[in-house]
Amino acid sequence: MNDFITLSDLPDFKQTLDLAMDFKKNPYKLSSLGKGKTLGLLFFNPSLRTRLSTQKAAQNLGLSTMVMNFSQESWALEFEDGTKMSGLRSEHVREAAAVVSQYCDMIAIRAFASLSDKVKDEAEVVLRSFAKYASVPIINMESSTAHPLQALADAITLNEFKTSHKPKIVLTWAPHPKALPHAVGNSFTRMVGNLDVDFIIAHPKGYALNPEITKGVKCLTNQDEALDGADFVYTKNWCSYEHYGQILRTDDKWMITSEKMELTNNGKFMHCLPVRRNIVATDSVLNSNNSLVINQSENRIYSAQAVLKQLL
Amino acid sequence: MNDFITLSDLPDFKQTLDLAMDFKKNPYKLSSLGKGKTLGLLFFNPSLRTRLSTQKAAQNLGLSTMVMNFSQESWALEFEDGTKMSGLRSEHVREAAAVVSQYCDMIAIRAFASLSDKVKDEAEVVLRSFAKYASVPIINMESSTAHPLQALADAITLNEFKTSHKPKIVLTWAPHPKALPHAVGNSFTRMVGNLDVDFIIAHPKGYALNPEITKGVKCLTNQDEALDGADFVYTKNWCSYEHYGQILRTDDKWMITSEKMELTNNGKFMHCLPVRRNIVATDSVLNSNNSLVINQSENRIYSAQAVLKQLL
Amino acid sequence: MNDFITLSDLPDFKQTLDLAMDFKKNPYKLSSLGKGKTLGLLFFNPSLRTRLSTQKAAQNLGLSTMVMNFSQESWALEFEDGTKMSGLRSEHVREAAAVVSQYCDMIAIRAFASLSDKVKDEAEVVLRSFAKYASVPIINMESSTAHPLQALADAITLNEFKTSHKPKIVLTWAPHPKALPHAVGNSFTRMVGNLDVDFIIAHPKGYALNPEITKGVKCLTNQDEALDGADFVYTKNWCSYEHYGQILRTDDKWMITSEKMELTNNGKFMHCLPVRRNIVATDSVLNSNNSLVINQSENRIYSAQAVLKQLL
Repeated sequence: MNDFITLSDLPDFKQTLDLAMDFKKNPYKLSSLGKGKTLGLLFFNPSLRTRLSTQKAAQNLGLSTMVMNFSQESWALEFEDGTKMSGLRSEHVREAAAVVSQYCDMIAIRAFASLSDKVKDEAEVVLRSFAKYASVPIINMESSTAHPLQALADAITLNEFKTSHKPKIVLTWAPHPKALPHAVGNSFTRMVGNLDVDFIIAHPKGYALNPEITKGVKCLTNQDEALDGADFVYTKNWCSYEHYGQILRTDDKWMITSEKMELTNNGKFMHCLPVRRNIVATDSVLNSNNSLVINQSENRIYSAQAVLKQLL
Repeated sequence: MNDFITLSDLPDFKQTLDLAMDFKKNPYKLSSLGKGKTLGLLFFNPSLRTRLSTQKAAQNLGLSTMVMNFSQESWALEFEDGTKMSGLRSEHVREAAAVVSQYCDMIAIRAFASLSDKVKDEAEVVLRSFAKYASVPIINMESSTAHPLQALADAITLNEFKTSHKPKIVLTWAPHPKALPHAVGNSFTRMVGNLDVDFIIAHPKGYALNPEITKGVKCLTNQDEALDGADFVYTKNWCSYEHYGQILRTDDKWMITSEKMELTNNGKFMHCLPVRRNIVATDSVLNSNNSLVINQSENRIYSAQAVLKQLL
Repeated sequence: MNDFITLSDLPDFKQTLDLAMDFKKNPYKLSSLGKGKTLGLLFFNPSLRTRLSTQKAAQNLGLSTMVMNFSQESWALEFEDGTKMSGLRSEHVREAAAVVSQYCDMIAIRAFASLSDKVKDEAEVVLRSFAKYASVPIINMESSTAHPLQALADAITLNEFKTSHKPKIVLTWAPHPKALPHAVGNSFTRMVGNLDVDFIIAHPKGYALNPEITKGVKCLTNQDEALDGADFVYTKNWCSYEHYGQILRTDDKWMITSEKMELTNNGKFMHCLPVRRNIVATDSVLNSNNSLVINQSENRIYSAQAVLKQLL
């Protein structure tokens, strides 16, 4: 694996999952592996879980870390080729990526979708430019269209809490006051493709994910029907993909409530966080014993550790 | 001790003080104690001394550290229970505190008083919410009403520089152009209650600290009378507690000058810093050999180290 | 050496250069030298290369690091003596420098020129004040008038890529839409004075550097004439020194192009970065095999490591 930009970069999904579960049992088993090496973490957007869990994973492997909030602490970057750089952007990614490669043995990057330019977002300009011009591996800490470290943590969590051989998993859209990216929904869908499960996506009309990603997946626009008998309910908002970046509705009908959870097979509730309480899901759902959101966040350490290990 | 939110959380003040003085003599005596463990430092406000001294204390104990400027680098937090989170706050402290607990073995937090809402400030919403929802110890790096790491450092400094068995200590209000919190004054007063000293608080009318905290303490509104024969003059501004958050006067009459220091028993000058020169105290006082302000800042390392050690 | 503020602080330039080249061959040869010691990095301005390379150099020597974006994370500093601090600046550098010295064994500082007040800029108020009031060594990570860590890295690069005993080096001004400081040009000129080379500075009329620094150096206002037969072309913009802080022209005539590089002796292209493409130099120049800009950035590690080693 040269870079970890999407789940498909992993040489073997199952082995990665096993490695992550193994690190969870024994986090310090390779605590000298990264000695003398450095992971750079570059943030173009806010981060709590990703920021801390990726650092923690690096520490567990003996890696040094250097964290940068790129936009505030450094120079605004130009990503277009051939431009006359007379504006606000004072450094080109060609130099920035090559330079950071001199100081770091791996570079992890967070760069959210603009949600205003579908073509640019899908081109993954920031991640792909860094991958092109860096001489060291690039790690995706959430890009425009993918959040594979989250999806891998979710796979660990599903593995830990499944009670049947072929559980039913529902990924359901939920309301949100702000336009949010598709990255988590996309990567969760891709990840589930590696598991032996019964998988359904539920979303209101106009909120279908990228059809290339959901190809072959059963999609319903009736949430109740989807939730029926579910073992896991993975909830997440995203803005419209078709009417790119738009919010088509903000009513509460798709919020996950205790009543809706009663339609499930004593289903576990999952969300990548941060979650807006009483908008995406009610307090009663988030506070219930069936909520796995904190478990998911813990597993972010081990998903990152398994990826870092394979890139070292 | 589960958390260190106020001085009264310490199992034994005297033993903590001895431990701190011991670390000052031998900072690295337990340099492997924290190996494999991580201290998270979350800042909701600016910080110089606290930021660096707490990191340094952690390093002395072999702890890894992760520093976050929470407001800028992460999501705005909701602290109210039961709200419909449709506004600017995109994560609830319930999740944030539980999540950070997955990555850190201890969480240190700085969250200043609003000075606009006395009830909320006294409820210590940020610190108490983190303590409630975190599964690891919380450390106060200055909250609305207390700054116990500063008070413990001040105790070390008093111990080092006292020349009599029962020194006279004066905590005196001083002017300041901005409304400042009561945290330092409160914790200093609480801390002094553990020492065998003659203690007086001096402040202008309208500037009495919270009477619950000053219960049993001699308070004067005549600064000169208070300073008479003092061995230590601890100077600090705070806004009005009674007229909460207000600045009632900004004249120079209460500024500490060399002339005022002459009323003392060759008294030592103390201040927690940052200090506005020629507003709170004159250059001549701050530059004199009797100023202990830098010694106080050095002792911040050892007060933090003694607290971290006991929480490990 | 007490501090490293300019190249002339080095006890021996040649030995420092040899030490840096030696670290490049074996970065970890003194990886325990800094054990238990801490380097503080204080940034008053943005930074990419300096931020990461100096941290990396410290890690190579086993030093702990603490990074602060001073302006945002701490208090605004007052540098004037004797003022009544009633404004926005809430801490004086006297205290700040002395306090940071309690927590750090060395303090590295970046503080750019204002470009509005030549007298203050040349007095190097930030660096010199810290040096005056700190009790530990100060390291210049680019000040108003000097960038010696960059110059030392450039010396390594020149050494690595020279093909003749006495190469011809041209430092040429180039256009830029923003007013930039003279620090890099100054330090490069000072550094070259230690080498056995043929050195020319080229700049348009009105863009002469400080004549004290260029004393004895051949300066031309004809770029083509200067480039003739050059082995190294070091390109950098700076604003007018005479008309301090002003931009006198923004046309492309002084931009480095492939055509201009053809005037040279198969010359190598150098720039300290960040560089605005197609403003300072064309894509063709920056993308050519003769560009050394990434090599220069790599050598920032070893120039910093050689300085830190000598201060330890």
